[in-house]
Amino acid sequence: MEAADMAWLLAAFAMVLLMFPGLAMLYGGMLNGRNVLNMMLMVLSSLAVTGVVYVVVGHGLVLGDSVGGWGLIGNPLDFSFYTDFMSDDEAGGTFWAAFYVLFAAISAALVASGAAGRMKFGSWLVFVALWVLVVYSPLAHWVFAFDNPEAGTVGGWMRNQLGFHDFAGGTAVHMNAGAAGLALAVVLGRRKAQAGRPHNLPLMMIGVGLLATGWMGFNGGTAGGANFLAQYVVLTTLLSLCGGMLGFIAIERIRDGHATMLGLGTGAIAGMVGITPVADVVGPVGAIMVGFLAAAAAAWAITWKRRHRIDDSLDVFAVHGIAGITGSLFATFFANPAAPGGMAGIVFGGAFSELGSELIAIAVTLGYSFCMTFAILWVMNKIRPIRVDEADEEAGLDRSVHAETAYDSRPF
Amino acid sequence: MEAADMAWLLAAFAMVLLMFPGLAMLYGGMLNGRNVLNMMLMVLSSLAVTGVVYVVVGHGLVLGDSVGGWGLIGNPLDFSFYTDFMSDDEAGGTFWAAFYVLFAAISAALVASGAAGRMKFGSWLVFVALWVLVVYSPLAHWVFAFDNPEAGTVGGWMRNQLGFHDFAGGTAVHMNAGAAGLALAVVLGRRKAQAGRPHNLPLMMIGVGLLATGWMGFNGGTAGGANFLAQYVVLTTLLSLCGGMLGFIAIERIRDGHATMLGLGTGAIAGMVGITPVADVVGPVGAIMVGFLAAAAAAWAITWKRRHRIDDSLDVFAVHGIAGITGSLFATFFANPAAPGGMAGIVFGGAFSELGSELIAIAVTLGYSFCMTFAILWVMNKIRPIRVDEADEEAGLDRSVHAETAYDSRPF
Amino acid sequence: MEAADMAWLLAAFAMVLLMFPGLAMLYGGMLNGRNVLNMMLMVLSSLAVTGVVYVVVGHGLVLGDSVGGWGLIGNPLDFSFYTDFMSDDEAGGTFWAAFYVLFAAISAALVASGAAGRMKFGSWLVFVALWVLVVYSPLAHWVFAFDNPEAGTVGGWMRNQLGFHDFAGGTAVHMNAGAAGLALAVVLGRRKAQAGRPHNLPLMMIGVGLLATGWMGFNGGTAGGANFLAQYVVLTTLLSLCGGMLGFIAIERIRDGHATMLGLGTGAIAGMVGITPVADVVGPVGAIMVGFLAAAAAAWAITWKRRHRIDDSLDVFAVHGIAGITGSLFATFFANPAAPGGMAGIVFGGAFSELGSELIAIAVTLGYSFCMTFAILWVMNKIRPIRVDEADEEAGLDRSVHAETAYDSRPF
Repeated sequence: MEAADMAWLLAAFAMVLLMFPGLAMLYGGMLNGRNVLNMMLMVLSSLAVTGVVYVVVGHGLVLGDSVGGWGLIGNPLDFSFYTDFMSDDEAGGTFWAAFYVLFAAISAALVASGAAGRMKFGSWLVFVALWVLVVYSPLAHWVFAFDNPEAGTVGGWMRNQLGFHDFAGGTAVHMNAGAAGLALAVVLGRRKAQAGRPHNLPLMMIGVGLLATGWMGFNGGTAGGANFLAQYVVLTTLLSLCGGMLGFIAIERIRDGHATMLGLGTGAIAGMVGITPVADVVGPVGAIMVGFLAAAAAAWAITWKRRHRIDDSLDVFAVHGIAGITGSLFATFFANPAAPGGMAGIVFGGAFSELGSELIAIAVTLGYSFCMTFAILWVMNKIRPIRVDEADEEAGLDRSVHAETAYDSRPF
Repeated sequence: MEAADMAWLLAAFAMVLLMFPGLAMLYGGMLNGRNVLNMMLMVLSSLAVTGVVYVVVGHGLVLGDSVGGWGLIGNPLDFSFYTDFMSDDEAGGTFWAAFYVLFAAISAALVASGAAGRMKFGSWLVFVALWVLVVYSPLAHWVFAFDNPEAGTVGGWMRNQLGFHDFAGGTAVHMNAGAAGLALAVVLGRRKAQAGRPHNLPLMMIGVGLLATGWMGFNGGTAGGANFLAQYVVLTTLLSLCGGMLGFIAIERIRDGHATMLGLGTGAIAGMVGITPVADVVGPVGAIMVGFLAAAAAAWAITWKRRHRIDDSLDVFAVHGIAGITGSLFATFFANPAAPGGMAGIVFGGAFSELGSELIAIAVTLGYSFCMTFAILWVMNKIRPIRVDEADEEAGLDRSVHAETAYDSRPF
Repeated sequence: MEAADMAWLLAAFAMVLLMFPGLAMLYGGMLNGRNVLNMMLMVLSSLAVTGVVYVVVGHGLVLGDSVGGWGLIGNPLDFSFYTDFMSDDEAGGTFWAAFYVLFAAISAALVASGAAGRMKFGSWLVFVALWVLVVYSPLAHWVFAFDNPEAGTVGGWMRNQLGFHDFAGGTAVHMNAGAAGLALAVVLGRRKAQAGRPHNLPLMMIGVGLLATGWMGFNGGTAGGANFLAQYVVLTTLLSLCGGMLGFIAIERIRDGHATMLGLGTGAIAGMVGITPVADVVGPVGAIMVGFLAAAAAAWAITWKRRHRIDDSLDVFAVHGIAGITGSLFATFFANPAAPGGMAGIVFGGAFSELGSELIAIAVTLGYSFCMTFAILWVMNKIRPIRVDEADEEAGLDRSVHAETAYDSRPF
């Protein structure tokens, strides 16, 4: 690891940290004014809980040597208590030990979308710990752990056996969070009180802005250094962000007759989700199209969800699940072999079998995430109900659970 | 291009991206509460539209080989569709292809100041595309495109023939946006409804904060790497920011008897605008003075504008035009030859002819930008009025154009 | 100084700049709605005033050759007017000249906590200038100025004679600001009007978020480059942040029966304060514990303060003073010799005398800061009262001192 690469990675790390307040604002701003702080607490506490869990056993589960060589889960005792990271391994291991905490924590935080305004805060903290161990860690192991013949360690099956391309976490982060958020929404059931309109769209806008900068660190940092790949993926991420904004407001204009801030912001996120797994394999024009199509697909999915009355309040399934799938499928067909990833999409002569791998990876990710998340919550709910009681829900969780309100409404 | 330089440039890029939510908040916070989302949508959509336009032909117009060798406009087909940027040119071309999108887009976004609360959103989107092509691109070509005898390409006349010093976009970005914003305000005419007070000054303050960090990326990134010049320009940018805050509140204290947040924030921006063209050629004490004087000049221009009843609502002409001119003129007289830019101001023995070049560059920039922007808008307005109708304006564009409101005003 | 190191430092610098809007939001959001802008102006003007003071004589006072070789204060004429920094010293001097301005300014800004809602703005500006010169500069000299036998210069007594470990400003920044804020609160006396509840907790949350990213630049930049130490301290800072959030809400849950956003945010800050002096000497699990204990100690100190009716409105003494002391003391006992700092805590065989040095450093810092700050304010108050009159205080300083209000409360 060269110092120059580390210089960029350190900056990227600090930027990814911006994604936590960013997501707290995005989600908090989109909710009604009675559950804002509860949502922000869910997002930020995801980082707190994941940090501890990850140091104890999480990093081993994700990047440790595969147990039994099966590629299913890493050895939890590898890296336990992070004692290895007190000395320099010359490969940036200490840095990655910090960076990976953020990947796991932001995935957990995204899931909060499905719980808006109706989950006990204590239950959420327990859920985050279990979810990181049982759902995120295996999925992350499957795609983030490379076989390392030199060190004699075995990595995840999806990366090494299936040969599935996922640049920066399309499956383990975004599709996973989307499916898990949906499971959480289903287990909790719909909100009793009227959901209400977003209480503060400028707050949501700031969230989108911080997330965009964080995303440059997320995708650019995944390039592993200050190299050409990093240059390329920040370019494609930017272009997909542009395409995503345009894609969502185009659909809105056609469907509703007007563009909205909620739409432009949602499209921005969907565009960045869409490019995340494929930022290195599509061309610049392809990146714009990934953003456009991912946002359009998310817009369609939001309409579909409303019709089916599933209360995934903040649309993590549409914006992270559907948009992530769209980006991955686009690349299967249109990956440009001249891009640094060097993958040829089917229309550029790539093997048709890639579509099979892709569909297997997507189906397994969504299935595993949804079912295991559902199972965790079902068991938790049996032991002690995870939903707040009706009176607390109606009063709003800020007041009933946290004994504070987001704003002091007295006249100034 | 060394990896170490790229490490800083990548970080600078991600920081410049913060300028978009920053500007959206600055402008949105300064407006009344009925046109907040409309303003934020104008700012963010500038990025979306510019991204697409730039990939198609914009980058060639700015940095392409001058058509006919005249130094007026680059060849739009150079870099078209960004296919060149899929492979590493070892000179960071792919990075610059991303960075320049942000330069163009932020310039366009600044112009929105002149349209506050009275422009059709569709007209804005069309305007941005035309303005980037017809106004920004030539101006940027004039100052950003260097002659390259080795490659046999010709750059812009202002940079290469006139020998005009502009460190990071005083003309093409700031003076240009200032003049164009003024033209937009003139074509649209004054707002019907009472403008109202800024609806959220803390929001404006956050905007200033993000812009300041973005500006370090903007000026520091223009240094081209992690070199001494970058160290120097972040120092002068910081000192000018300090001087700008003090300059504006000093004028306020004298003129009105009290300092305001609106004033301190405006002064901060004016200070950074003032230093942008001259960050490499003034000394540290000079940098404080640039900020102080640029902010004081902006404060004076705002008073002047109010007297002339021009509705450049968010003062882009005063804060970007006048402050930019002030910084440039300061350097003409007081540039310190010991600074890394190596330019001697007139009082330090520099040639008096520099003042001539300076005045030509300023006059041509302001004249071209104002007239061409006016012409674009005049034609657009002939084809289809670009101003919303009176009822929509009175209701506020958030509600009438975008069918949403910034805040849900129901009691919490 | 390698370019790679400078690449990280430049990014760190821009991130530390985020701490100013971050602190303005943290403090502004925690106040009632009548004194928000006043608080934000105090925070931001700290940067403006410090920038100027620092260029004139401040940097010499901190890093100049010790006057008389006594280790008490640097030579103010060293670096005066920053003319040295116009050429490259190959050691990054120009960069540090900019970075150190931010250190001094953020320390001054923190002190504003003690003045919430009752200090004249002009008095604040004068106070900042005096405080940076008389209180901050000596304290910073004591710990930041290293003896340099090669250059024949002498540094501060606390660093070089006492051999006190302080990684990134536990004494000069945090304990100092805590004690000074307390002195300011005592001199001003309690607020007349009811303090009121925090008027905007989401604003406070954004502040915490920006501060966290800034802190990575602050601690990570103090490592001096893109090296292993930087990797290590961003890891420990992250883990302490996590521990801090958990520590504060754990205490809240036990004491009050519920966790709050105000608590989680306060705990996040306390966790980062706690790790700042010891980020290089504790292990990863130790870092979590530092955060947890520092936040718990801050929570306890806030309760104690309320009982004693001292109006340090925004708890700078509890959050920066007490949490900083907790972190330092933790390391005295539990510093892990395997960490890059190479310091052995007492339980790991370290000398017991370290505790003595530690206690001396803490006592001298707190005593010097409190007494000198008190003295400055006492003299200022004699010359002209520094507190606003009662009518202005009751109206709120935003309206009475700055003639504006944070929000336009008219219905949208």
